[in-house]
Amino acid sequence: MILVTRQGITEEELDHIRERVESLGLRTHVSRGETLTVVGCIGDEERLQHVPLLSIPGVVAAHPVMKPYKLASREFAADPTRIPLGEVEVGGRGVVVVAGPCSVEGGDMLRETAARVRAAGAHGIRGGAFKPRSSPYSFQGMGQPGLELLVDVRDTHGLPVVTEVMDTRQVELVAGYADVLQIGTRNMQNFNLLTEVGRVQRPVLLKRGMSATIKDLLMSAEYIMQQGNSQVILCERGIRTFETATRNTFDLAAIPVLKRETHLPVIADPSHAGGRRDLVAPLAFAAIAAGADGLLVEVHPDPEAAWSDGDQSLDFAEFERLMGQLAPFAEAAGRKVAPL
Amino acid sequence: MILVTRQGITEEELDHIRERVESLGLRTHVSRGETLTVVGCIGDEERLQHVPLLSIPGVVAAHPVMKPYKLASREFAADPTRIPLGEVEVGGRGVVVVAGPCSVEGGDMLRETAARVRAAGAHGIRGGAFKPRSSPYSFQGMGQPGLELLVDVRDTHGLPVVTEVMDTRQVELVAGYADVLQIGTRNMQNFNLLTEVGRVQRPVLLKRGMSATIKDLLMSAEYIMQQGNSQVILCERGIRTFETATRNTFDLAAIPVLKRETHLPVIADPSHAGGRRDLVAPLAFAAIAAGADGLLVEVHPDPEAAWSDGDQSLDFAEFERLMGQLAPFAEAAGRKVAPL
Amino acid sequence: MILVTRQGITEEELDHIRERVESLGLRTHVSRGETLTVVGCIGDEERLQHVPLLSIPGVVAAHPVMKPYKLASREFAADPTRIPLGEVEVGGRGVVVVAGPCSVEGGDMLRETAARVRAAGAHGIRGGAFKPRSSPYSFQGMGQPGLELLVDVRDTHGLPVVTEVMDTRQVELVAGYADVLQIGTRNMQNFNLLTEVGRVQRPVLLKRGMSATIKDLLMSAEYIMQQGNSQVILCERGIRTFETATRNTFDLAAIPVLKRETHLPVIADPSHAGGRRDLVAPLAFAAIAAGADGLLVEVHPDPEAAWSDGDQSLDFAEFERLMGQLAPFAEAAGRKVAPL
Amino acid sequence: MILVTRQGITEEELDHIRERVESLGLRTHVSRGETLTVVGCIGDEERLQHVPLLSIPGVVAAHPVMKPYKLASREFAADPTRIPLGEVEVGGRGVVVVAGPCSVEGGDMLRETAARVRAAGAHGIRGGAFKPRSSPYSFQGMGQPGLELLVDVRDTHGLPVVTEVMDTRQVELVAGYADVLQIGTRNMQNFNLLTEVGRVQRPVLLKRGMSATIKDLLMSAEYIMQQGNSQVILCERGIRTFETATRNTFDLAAIPVLKRETHLPVIADPSHAGGRRDLVAPLAFAAIAAGADGLLVEVHPDPEAAWSDGDQSLDFAEFERLMGQLAPFAEAAGRKVAPL
Repeated sequence: MILVTRQGITEEELDHIRERVESLGLRTHVSRGETLTVVGCIGDEERLQHVPLLSIPGVVAAHPVMKPYKLASREFAADPTRIPLGEVEVGGRGVVVVAGPCSVEGGDMLRETAARVRAAGAHGIRGGAFKPRSSPYSFQGMGQPGLELLVDVRDTHGLPVVTEVMDTRQVELVAGYADVLQIGTRNMQNFNLLTEVGRVQRPVLLKRGMSATIKDLLMSAEYIMQQGNSQVILCERGIRTFETATRNTFDLAAIPVLKRETHLPVIADPSHAGGRRDLVAPLAFAAIAAGADGLLVEVHPDPEAAWSDGDQSLDFAEFERLMGQLAPFAEAAGRKVAPL
Repeated sequence: MILVTRQGITEEELDHIRERVESLGLRTHVSRGETLTVVGCIGDEERLQHVPLLSIPGVVAAHPVMKPYKLASREFAADPTRIPLGEVEVGGRGVVVVAGPCSVEGGDMLRETAARVRAAGAHGIRGGAFKPRSSPYSFQGMGQPGLELLVDVRDTHGLPVVTEVMDTRQVELVAGYADVLQIGTRNMQNFNLLTEVGRVQRPVLLKRGMSATIKDLLMSAEYIMQQGNSQVILCERGIRTFETATRNTFDLAAIPVLKRETHLPVIADPSHAGGRRDLVAPLAFAAIAAGADGLLVEVHPDPEAAWSDGDQSLDFAEFERLMGQLAPFAEAAGRKVAPL
Repeated sequence: MILVTRQGITEEELDHIRERVESLGLRTHVSRGETLTVVGCIGDEERLQHVPLLSIPGVVAAHPVMKPYKLASREFAADPTRIPLGEVEVGGRGVVVVAGPCSVEGGDMLRETAARVRAAGAHGIRGGAFKPRSSPYSFQGMGQPGLELLVDVRDTHGLPVVTEVMDTRQVELVAGYADVLQIGTRNMQNFNLLTEVGRVQRPVLLKRGMSATIKDLLMSAEYIMQQGNSQVILCERGIRTFETATRNTFDLAAIPVLKRETHLPVIADPSHAGGRRDLVAPLAFAAIAAGADGLLVEVHPDPEAAWSDGDQSLDFAEFERLMGQLAPFAEAAGRKVAPL
Repeated sequence: MILVTRQGITEEELDHIRERVESLGLRTHVSRGETLTVVGCIGDEERLQHVPLLSIPGVVAAHPVMKPYKLASREFAADPTRIPLGEVEVGGRGVVVVAGPCSVEGGDMLRETAARVRAAGAHGIRGGAFKPRSSPYSFQGMGQPGLELLVDVRDTHGLPVVTEVMDTRQVELVAGYADVLQIGTRNMQNFNLLTEVGRVQRPVLLKRGMSATIKDLLMSAEYIMQQGNSQVILCERGIRTFETATRNTFDLAAIPVLKRETHLPVIADPSHAGGRRDLVAPLAFAAIAAGADGLLVEVHPDPEAAWSDGDQSLDFAEFERLMGQLAPFAEAAGRKVAPL
């Protein structure tokens, strides 16, 4: 931590700043410039995290020099983390695709979807049994029966299940069915939920909050990892900005920035990012080109009749076309689509 | 709902659009313009909420004309809702002030703070026993012992307690102590938590999410109200934007917009909005000038030593000065500071 | 400037960093922490402004410690700058109000508006003769005849004229008529225009760009001042964010932040910030409560018929009511409305 | 245009609304819903652009149904516009790359850069002679001598010149040297400058403003086209958001959205979008994958010594590597890198 002091700082103020920092177990190092004096704090910067440094008289700015996350950082693990998803891995050389409906609406539509996305080359199935909806009047998900339907198609088609958990009280239940626990955008900073999914041994797919910085996302991954669960898959799904032509603004650059900052795998959700069917393919191709380890794609037998997110769901033909076009992008990026 | 159709729409497509809308129990009304044709949907617009209208062939845009919230809307209740807070009311003519530390750190500091803010004219005490912290390494709150300390100062000083609940599993516990349940920024769209606080008969202070629109905030209030709890206090506390000179961007205009759109009371949190002690007073004065029903202010005996949010906490002298300056702003706005 | 180096930096890299910085005329100061080493750069930080510091091998972050603006900074001038506007001053104890139509539409409407806003207590008249419009098909302003009409009402009513200049080629022309040259939002970083208005001896009203930080705004003021014109009035008028309930997001906190950072006067434009007539009064009151030195308000004889910005223009009765309510807010803030 | 009226609208109000709209030469069509009545306006919607519709008593919302741009819209031109750049075209099947330094710093560096980027496969050279800099103390460009150096390398290496024009007074001068006139981010809504470049017969490269929506960008293109110059190349270069890990937020989805909305070519600037050298390649690949027609890339012989934007400039080896990797992405997208 570097503390910048006000112009004309007195010796008494400087002494007080140093005493305050040293009382927390760090050492200090004063550097006098031509107009400003700065105090370097040497030692465990974490101890300063909760300290109101700007409240120390004479301090006008504080610049952290250490990253606030540890377990999630690239420095912590030399090799990229690979997370098993059925018979493939997320974070290895192969690009993986998880596809399925926004919500589980019933057995027939789920079985049909599973069969078709599997045939098209998907590696996992997604589908919500518990749905976070911004209106209390919207469909809230089928609940446990939906989880049972998901397990059923996994057993039939060999498709590992990715499904959302929204409530600390549901973690045990959902973990009893799911292969990957999804934490949704609106829960990215639900710290109690992060703590609970950190205590089960199931991979977690952590979606970026719509106003979360990349650092915030990594801090939320740290919450999960700090409880002992290091199997975290990060997911870029768009952030909220002033642009209204798309549902969210897909922050493509987050993919290479995350690949540089963390050893955790990074996937993209082109369905939520664009919010429109015609944008799914270009966003998916771009994500792979930029280094993403996989995709999360909404697919529905009849998007016009979907109970949620129909406007951004692909139908089967569209999904098949997407999968057919993916391989050359993966290869251009030095990857391949993971073989089934 | 108004559906705009593509240029050159065919009769078959128009028929399909009408059938689709009418199958949901609404009537349709076609209006042919010089270049575009629009389809008006007459009836209960709520039934169209989950329908992927842009997926109906030929539809290029959909404009809702009804507000998606009902119970929270100004149309629903002719008179402003007033919510009791000890012996005063939030939403009446009197401006109310709830003050106290970010976190309950112990009995002495809490008792001292309560005595001083009460003497200065505060109407309630705030203080977190459960703390949402972006780092897992930061102080997470005292938990239940913190709640007990809060109840203790309420009994001594007659200050109703406003404290945060973060987890569906804690609602019953916290409701057993608190006079007002606070839902924090990061949980504004934790829909399960909203549902649970909707089921207890305790007023709820709902803080705006940092990327939530005003409409989103009202939809979250609707979640609580739809469960039967209509005592919701809305709180503007700043949104996330590109500006970094302040911790958040205080969206002052949200106050008069909310007063126009809803019958619920609206307060402001100038501490989180600005993130710096010197901004608390100007933001507080502005909020009252713009029509806020009250303030939520962080106060600490020794901000430099606070365990959280010290940089934005007032010390006692600063809080006393703030309270001393508030009355003329309230009066200019046709209000008064609620008498103790 | 503080340079943070990568973990495991070598002596050779450190030497190269020091040489690079010292070759620019600064001194360096190395501070070795437990895991990271930082290099302090002592001397004229301005010389590092154009240097790609992150391109020096081993440098991972650079933290400026000096403010990039000088002439605009609070440190440069002990006393607040006061800028004459007819017989009053902007930046003194009195709050000033400049009112008038968005566009000058003709002589009758301008004369009528001038008479009425003057009678209601306004200190200056605003009105655009050159209009920046996002559509090429919209009314672009009357041009020079509009300027002549403005001068005409100034002479009749004693109202100094604030009007926009959009083009470097117009500066001389507009300066021949206007008392204050307005630089609009979309030109806040039109650096050639800033340079030209810096060369004339006319006060400049500089509106904040809709995606400009407070620092950007001060850097643009610096452009003007660096040419020799130190009479710059800053204007907060809302920034662009995700919120769509208002035309812009009024960044109220910018007012006290600017008052702390600069000696220049700061006014607010509640008309553009909110974009709706009913928001003008609450935003105006809040701005005064937060310390603004004045207001810029759109007023039109018949807003429903205005050629531009009618939805946010007050009619005469509304403006008179606003002026009637302003005084107690100014007094609560330790000011007064400047007497005519 | 669809006007939504307030609940309980009276017949008198409805009549006034209709009269107002009809007086502007449109027809109206009233549709009565169960709770709300809407008024459809049939005819030339452009005539309503400047009308303050919300100021008509009883109108609570106005939804435009026509796009505000015409010449730039996909409907206006069936075929994509192709713009010649030397011997290739922007907007055809071939992907084009324009590379060069941020600023022209002198003859040697420019000649060396031109030779190397040409050898690596670039189709044009970029370089600023007039530089918009946020600080008045930064290097402002070489001016006309810089233009002469650019023309010199064009003649030697056959590289068409793309260079920025910042001031209406410079348009004639710059157009005398440049093959493509660049309008920078901060001038995207400098309407006088747009008008002037619309009057010369030179292609214009229009960079998106950092807070401009996609619609704003198309409206600025419309300004140029409406003057008679239809050769406009649009450029996505990142927008301003809350994320600070990158210089700007690259709005990748803008590329396919623009390709859907307009016939104009769309290129990307991965250098400014990411602001860091290591992000240039992934953003470039993603842009091509998403359908961009070309790239604008900053290249410098010695980025560490560059006078501006060094941190985001590639050196020659990095640019050669980028060009070497581009072809398979272009091919995966059904394109090729345009042959020299």
